[in-house]
Amino acid sequence: MLESTMMDYQLTIPSILERARRLYPAQEIVSVLPVGVDPATKAPIPGVHRTTYGKTYPRVMQLCNALAGAGVSSGDRVATMALNSYRHYELYFAVPSVGAVCHMVNIRLPVEQICYILTHAEDRILFIENVFAAQIPHIRQHAPKIKTFVVLGPCPGGLPEGAIDYETFIGAQPTTFTYPYIDERQASGMCYTSGTTGNPKGVLYSHRAITLHSLASLSTELLGVNSRECIMPIVPMFHVNGWGYPYTCAMTGAKQVYMSVFTDAKNIARFVAEEGVTVCAGVPTIFLGLLDELDRAKSAGTPHQLPTLGTLLIGGSATPRSLVAAFSDRHNLHVKPAWGMTETTPLGTVNTVQPGDFADDREHKYDRMTFSGRPSPLVELRLEDDDRNEIEWGSGQSGRLLIRGPWITGSYYHNPEATAATQHDGWFDTGDIATIDADGTMMIQDRAKDLIKSGGEWISSVDLENELMGHPAIREAAVIAVAHPKWDERPLGVIVLRDTNQSPSKADLDHYLLERAVAKWQLPDAYEFVDEIPKTTVGKFLKRALREKFKDYKLA
Amino acid sequence: MLESTMMDYQLTIPSILERARRLYPAQEIVSVLPVGVDPATKAPIPGVHRTTYGKTYPRVMQLCNALAGAGVSSGDRVATMALNSYRHYELYFAVPSVGAVCHMVNIRLPVEQICYILTHAEDRILFIENVFAAQIPHIRQHAPKIKTFVVLGPCPGGLPEGAIDYETFIGAQPTTFTYPYIDERQASGMCYTSGTTGNPKGVLYSHRAITLHSLASLSTELLGVNSRECIMPIVPMFHVNGWGYPYTCAMTGAKQVYMSVFTDAKNIARFVAEEGVTVCAGVPTIFLGLLDELDRAKSAGTPHQLPTLGTLLIGGSATPRSLVAAFSDRHNLHVKPAWGMTETTPLGTVNTVQPGDFADDREHKYDRMTFSGRPSPLVELRLEDDDRNEIEWGSGQSGRLLIRGPWITGSYYHNPEATAATQHDGWFDTGDIATIDADGTMMIQDRAKDLIKSGGEWISSVDLENELMGHPAIREAAVIAVAHPKWDERPLGVIVLRDTNQSPSKADLDHYLLERAVAKWQLPDAYEFVDEIPKTTVGKFLKRALREKFKDYKLA
Repeated sequence: MLESTMMDYQLTIPSILERARRLYPAQEIVSVLPVGVDPATKAPIPGVHRTTYGKTYPRVMQLCNALAGAGVSSGDRVATMALNSYRHYELYFAVPSVGAVCHMVNIRLPVEQICYILTHAEDRILFIENVFAAQIPHIRQHAPKIKTFVVLGPCPGGLPEGAIDYETFIGAQPTTFTYPYIDERQASGMCYTSGTTGNPKGVLYSHRAITLHSLASLSTELLGVNSRECIMPIVPMFHVNGWGYPYTCAMTGAKQVYMSVFTDAKNIARFVAEEGVTVCAGVPTIFLGLLDELDRAKSAGTPHQLPTLGTLLIGGSATPRSLVAAFSDRHNLHVKPAWGMTETTPLGTVNTVQPGDFADDREHKYDRMTFSGRPSPLVELRLEDDDRNEIEWGSGQSGRLLIRGPWITGSYYHNPEATAATQHDGWFDTGDIATIDADGTMMIQDRAKDLIKSGGEWISSVDLENELMGHPAIREAAVIAVAHPKWDERPLGVIVLRDTNQSPSKADLDHYLLERAVAKWQLPDAYEFVDEIPKTTVGKFLKRALREKFKDYKLA
Repeated sequence: MLESTMMDYQLTIPSILERARRLYPAQEIVSVLPVGVDPATKAPIPGVHRTTYGKTYPRVMQLCNALAGAGVSSGDRVATMALNSYRHYELYFAVPSVGAVCHMVNIRLPVEQICYILTHAEDRILFIENVFAAQIPHIRQHAPKIKTFVVLGPCPGGLPEGAIDYETFIGAQPTTFTYPYIDERQASGMCYTSGTTGNPKGVLYSHRAITLHSLASLSTELLGVNSRECIMPIVPMFHVNGWGYPYTCAMTGAKQVYMSVFTDAKNIARFVAEEGVTVCAGVPTIFLGLLDELDRAKSAGTPHQLPTLGTLLIGGSATPRSLVAAFSDRHNLHVKPAWGMTETTPLGTVNTVQPGDFADDREHKYDRMTFSGRPSPLVELRLEDDDRNEIEWGSGQSGRLLIRGPWITGSYYHNPEATAATQHDGWFDTGDIATIDADGTMMIQDRAKDLIKSGGEWISSVDLENELMGHPAIREAAVIAVAHPKWDERPLGVIVLRDTNQSPSKADLDHYLLERAVAKWQLPDAYEFVDEIPKTTVGKFLKRALREKFKDYKLA
């Protein structure tokens, strides 16, 4: 091989940190944090913490020194159970900068599962938000490899025994630090899949993956983040690197607004206005709430004034068309779906329709805006049929979605079985069923295991759900397979009504779906009305629980 | 080292090619090529060749097969002496896709120097534009390692002996090709420095460098190229990868317009209008010509209608402030300086001032718009004093500019002396003298060797030139050092007038410069008026030749 004469320059997270400090020292990182409790409502009161890329840098250096002082060295896992705030941001950069692995634990999991994950990852230190500090004794008992507990945020009632306060941990440290040599393929971060089935599986991100994902996110082919934007990542930072935003924003000097516990629609609207947010990013559930709030305020004659806000980036679940249309028609906000997974760092595709596109055909535009989008630069997609033959793009045929690229997982951490089940000839099998248009626009049809197999034909549960959620009487709809003696499986619709006194009949819903190009044989055989659909910790429908609940359901 | 679980996915040029074909098949690549000669003026007549990313793909595959069939394999050097057109574009992709090295030779060099370069690089095949085909016998004699000559474009008078026509070379080949395994550190391309001093030095680009440079170019922190742009790279494709545009445009599906021999202002204006060009990229000389043409047409009452054109990207030399102001004030066009070198693939910095910035202070805006700009993501800058101590950004002090990053050269090809002279502790010494502001905005003051050392103080020749070129009577100005008995060196201004009958006096020019904040001791001691300033083949002032011409100059 004839090598080039280019430098052997490693792509590492410290380079992003240094860039943010040097080029964008005055750009802000705003954290909305609880500063007390309203005595009447018992609700936390939000306060604003304001820092900059320049001011946060010496604190990150202090944290690096404190980690090194605590014996953390290359390859060690350091866990966080933390909310979105500047402290979590500091951990995002300091832990990889000492060569260690920032393991972002999903704080919404049951504590037993958290202990399983902490033990599997062999975490040595846990940085834990003050609101979860009461769990420390239990974690100490069930994840005994953790030797150090550092509490983020004040504990007015006193620190749990043996725990250290974060400010004390870093306070006395020097504000300069010499990075160790870091190979770009070295692990920098870790997440476990939220696990709709089986035990969570660990994915180790690399400095290279994070750097390339951040750089690609600056392109308008992906997120188009730039130094003039103000991003509010409502997505939790434990959820696949907070969709990469902490790193992406730092690389280009975008302003960041972190909401900690204040992810309700009223607070989102308030701080979007106060901080001049241009992009909000989160799961559909968050935006369903925001839509209700914007509608309510508008019809009350006191609409929210959000002149800077332009784009709502939606990921984590399929984007209902009704949401796209409602935000656009009623609030002039552009919904932008993105698709990714824990295994994809996370972004694989983003919908690249822009606000001015298809101006003469709004219905077509909204159809296109529900698509999962086109692959990022450096990411490749492939569709396969059941025999692993490639399905041509634009054929209309759906198949298993495979993906490859420099930020796609090639294995699971200490889990050869799960690795073997998902890796095929250099491609990662997503477990999703999708279509891909001739121009590379991908649409997730369903999780492979959520498809409904009726008489040898597949019915997409996601398609039915998205149509049903456009019905004015329906707040949420999940569709699952139930056993059928003749057809093998048939769809059952599980519905949460907006108003339990206004329940549509099956005939109403059949008519509604048929009008929206659903085939007759795909119509759900029955509907059940429930108060709530169980969800995963990241807001997806937990269909496993619904299937369990309705496993003996008898179709009429 | 704890490795991540990410895939080992190589960053290679075939991935860019595949992306362009799959995602942007209908996007156009337009080439304006000579289709005959005007009998009256003897000028070539332009004709439009139109293809797409989709249609060019099978031709690239054919070229891959033809190269493999001609015995080209991994690491082999393949030379081009070619104009900007779709054929050169095909070579840009096919040569690296077979694992070989696309060596883009500067066609404006004297044939002796071309033969030196071809021999030094050990090129095996030469793809040569029909207009240079007469040089084949000479090259065959003086660069005997070249075994195959392929002529680009028709030769109505017949092919030179032993040469092959390009269409014949690829025509019978299959339209599919299986890429060999390519390591991203492998050499993909090669350029020689245009060499204002000494013999040209070779730089080998890598698949990794090109891929990362392209991805960074999609960010608004660098070029901000996207799929909705139409780019006219007037910069020759032999000049540092055509500033990366062929690869960058393909990665994001931007339309490209190539001008071959038609780089005069009238044809630029014509095809910008006809093809809807949004960005033109070239050296200042090109845009000085375009400015004259736009001014002329406007004052003649027949202004060019260029509604799509927004940005003029200028590189290769410092951007005169007068050019920035003239395009903005008179033609509503935004000039965007960029800085790079053969050794930097090429982009190191880009000026990120946007059209709407500093709207209330036009003079300040134009000052800022002449800066070389801020470093690209993944690129780091460093300033050093003569003792190799780092100079802090924002100190106002100038020093030697060093640079590092994944697309910066770490050595010269087979040239350990030149390598040792420019590599210092992982940084490349650019040989430029620069300042860097507190926010990372860099400004080239001069080439180190072009600085004028007067009484122990430095005078920037570039600063004086840029001011002088704003004078209404002056078309071009170069400033060089001449020996002085007392001050060691003093500046001499070498001037090309717009109208030789309107020559300003020294007192006029002194007054003009003093009004523009030039210090009295920095004023040139004398001026010489010449018909033309000699230039390098890429349009930079050839100061070496001026210094030679005026080496015995006696100051009064």
